[in-house]
Amino acid sequence: MDHELDLRADAPALTAALTDIASVSGEEGPLADAIERALTRVPHLVVTRRGNTLVARTALGREERVVLAGHIDTVPHAANFPSRWNSERTVLTGVGTSDMKSGVAVQLRLAASMAAPNRDVTYVFYDCEEVAVERNGLYKLSRSDPDLLRGDFAVLLEPSGGVVEGGCQGTLRAAIATIGKRAHTARSWMGRNAIHAAGEILEILRAWTPRKPVVDGLEYHEGLNAVAISGGVAGNVVPDECVVTVNYRFAPDRSERAAEEYIRELFAAWPVEILDNAPGARPGLSALAAASFAAAVGGTPRAKLGWTDVARFAELGIPAVNYGPGISEIAHTPGEYVDARAITAAEQSLRTWLTL
Amino acid sequence: MDHELDLRADAPALTAALTDIASVSGEEGPLADAIERALTRVPHLVVTRRGNTLVARTALGREERVVLAGHIDTVPHAANFPSRWNSERTVLTGVGTSDMKSGVAVQLRLAASMAAPNRDVTYVFYDCEEVAVERNGLYKLSRSDPDLLRGDFAVLLEPSGGVVEGGCQGTLRAAIATIGKRAHTARSWMGRNAIHAAGEILEILRAWTPRKPVVDGLEYHEGLNAVAISGGVAGNVVPDECVVTVNYRFAPDRSERAAEEYIRELFAAWPVEILDNAPGARPGLSALAAASFAAAVGGTPRAKLGWTDVARFAELGIPAVNYGPGISEIAHTPGEYVDARAITAAEQSLRTWLTL
Repeated sequence: MDHELDLRADAPALTAALTDIASVSGEEGPLADAIERALTRVPHLVVTRRGNTLVARTALGREERVVLAGHIDTVPHAANFPSRWNSERTVLTGVGTSDMKSGVAVQLRLAASMAAPNRDVTYVFYDCEEVAVERNGLYKLSRSDPDLLRGDFAVLLEPSGGVVEGGCQGTLRAAIATIGKRAHTARSWMGRNAIHAAGEILEILRAWTPRKPVVDGLEYHEGLNAVAISGGVAGNVVPDECVVTVNYRFAPDRSERAAEEYIRELFAAWPVEILDNAPGARPGLSALAAASFAAAVGGTPRAKLGWTDVARFAELGIPAVNYGPGISEIAHTPGEYVDARAITAAEQSLRTWLTL
Repeated sequence: MDHELDLRADAPALTAALTDIASVSGEEGPLADAIERALTRVPHLVVTRRGNTLVARTALGREERVVLAGHIDTVPHAANFPSRWNSERTVLTGVGTSDMKSGVAVQLRLAASMAAPNRDVTYVFYDCEEVAVERNGLYKLSRSDPDLLRGDFAVLLEPSGGVVEGGCQGTLRAAIATIGKRAHTARSWMGRNAIHAAGEILEILRAWTPRKPVVDGLEYHEGLNAVAISGGVAGNVVPDECVVTVNYRFAPDRSERAAEEYIRELFAAWPVEILDNAPGARPGLSALAAASFAAAVGGTPRAKLGWTDVARFAELGIPAVNYGPGISEIAHTPGEYVDARAITAAEQSLRTWLTL
C-alpha cells in the first residue's frame, strides 16, 4: 500500500502519521517512498534519493547553508505500534514517537512551508541509524556524496527534550569470548564450562563505576553494559564457548582508539573482538554558528549522552548540535511517547531561527 | 535393499554387519527388518514387533525370567560410517560400534544359539533411544505392552566397558530467568541489566560443590551445569531478560520431585521453569537376581553416571543393570570404536550366567 503524507497537517498530526508507517531499521522503504512523494511536490526543493535516504535542498544562493537532519528508522516494535493519543490529544505514545518521528515531522513541516528561509537549508532524512554504523544512511551519504551534506552548521532533530545538546558520547561494541572444553554433562568434570567462566566477565561489569568527565563545560556520563550473551551446544553438553557482547558509551574526551584500549585492558583475560566503534564529538558550542543557534532557540545547553550523528558532522568539519522535541530518556522503551506541545514549540523555535 | 544377518558369524563379525546397516534414530526400519527376519527363523523364539521395536522370548516355563535389552539406533554419522577394522582385526571403528551395535550383536548371538537357557529370556531390540524420551521404543513398549517386558531382572547391553554398572543418575533441565528493565545504553542507569543480574546465577553454579553419595554401596557423582545462556535485545539496549538453562544430573538417592525442589530452592531468587526431568535408578545390587548376575560375570560393580533406560525398568519395578562390551567414554564421538575381544568376553560371560 502506498502511504500519503499531508504536509499541511500540524506537526503533532504529522508525527502520528509518520509513526504509523512502520520503519524498523532495514524496512524504511515505504516511509522513504511516502516522504519522497510528498517532498517532490514542493516546488522550492531539489530532491535527491540514495537508497532509502532523501536529501531536499533549497537553492536560494544564501551566504550561509544549514543542515537539518533526522533518521526515519525505529527500533523493533514492543507492542507499541501503531501510535495512540491520550484522550486530551496532548501525548502520543508509540515506537519512534520521540526517537524521532516527531523531529522528522518538524523537518517536513519546515521543508514544505519555508520557501524563502534566511539561510539555505538542506533537509536530510536517512535510514538505518539504529543499527550497525556501516548501514547508517548518513554515514553512507558522507562517503558517496559528501557535497550533499555541505553546510556551515547542522542540527540533528534527535530527541533532546527541546534543549540544545552539545557533542555526543562515543559508542563501542565488543565481543568477549570465554573458551572451555566440551564434555558430556553426565561427566562434567571432564570438561570446562565456558558459560560458568563468563561469570567473571559479568562480575567486572557489575563492579564497574562510570566516569563523569566535564568537557568544554558540559558533564558527560559513561556507561558499560552487556547487550547480549550466548552460549550452549546441546542440553547434555558442557559448553566450550560463551560470548558476551558489551556496549561502551564513552565521553568525548576519549578517542575511539583510547576507548578500544580501555576495553581491551579491562577484559585482558579474554579474547576481545571490536565489533564497531564510533567516536564521540566534543560539544563545540564555542563555534560561532552553534552559539548563534543556541542563542536563538534559548535555554541552557547540556551534554548529549547518547551517540548521535553529530559525530558524523564533526568528522566532516561541520559544527553540529542535537535539538529535537522527543525525550531521549524514554526512547527505545515500550512506553515511548512524545508531548504534542513540545513538537509545536520545536517547530516554532526553528522557524524563528530561519526567519529572523 | 534387504539386508541379511548371519547369526552364526562370531559376535565381532556380527557387530560389523550390524554397524554397516545405517540406523540413525528415526531410520531404523531396514535394521529392524533384518533383525526380524533373522529371529523369526529361530525355532525356540516367539517374536513380536511393534513399530521398529522387536521382542523375542523363550517360553520354557522357567521359574525366573530375565530381560536382555538394547537399542538399535545410533547418533548421526560423523564421517565414521561404514565401519572399519584395524589391520589386526582387533579394533572396529565406526558410529554405533560401542553405543551399541556390539551389545546388540551379543544379544542376537545368545538369542539364536541358546535354545534352553537356565532362565527364560526376553530379548528386546528397540528404536529411538538417542532422541527425545517420547519417541523411545522401550518407553513406548512400557506403555503399550508392559507384559512383554515382565521379568525378574534386566540387563541393558549399553556400553559399560565390560563392567557391571548399577543404577543411573537422573537428569533435570531447568530454565532460570533474570528480569531487568530495558533502557537505552546511552542512559543505562535508567534500566536494570538482566544479563549482569545473571552473573549471580553463574556464581551459584561456580560455587556449587557436587554431592557424591554412596547408594547401595556404589558412589555417584552429581553435576550441575549451565548448558545454554541467552539474553539481549539490540546492540544499544539494556536487556530486560536473560535465561540460563541448567542441567542437573542427580544421584539415585534423590527422587525427581526432590531434584526439582532442590533446584527451585537453589535458585529461589528467580523464576524457574522445569523443562524436563527423568528419574535415576538405585543400583539395586542387593536384589537377589542382580547379585547373582554380578557374581556370575565377575568384577567390581560401579555406579552408572549417565542416564540410561535402566531407569525405565526401575519404574516397572524390575531391577536392572548396564553391562555391555562398548566404551561409554567414546560414545557419540567421531572416533567411536569397540574392542573385538571385549565383545567376545561379554558374550561368554552372559552365556555362562544363562547356563550354569
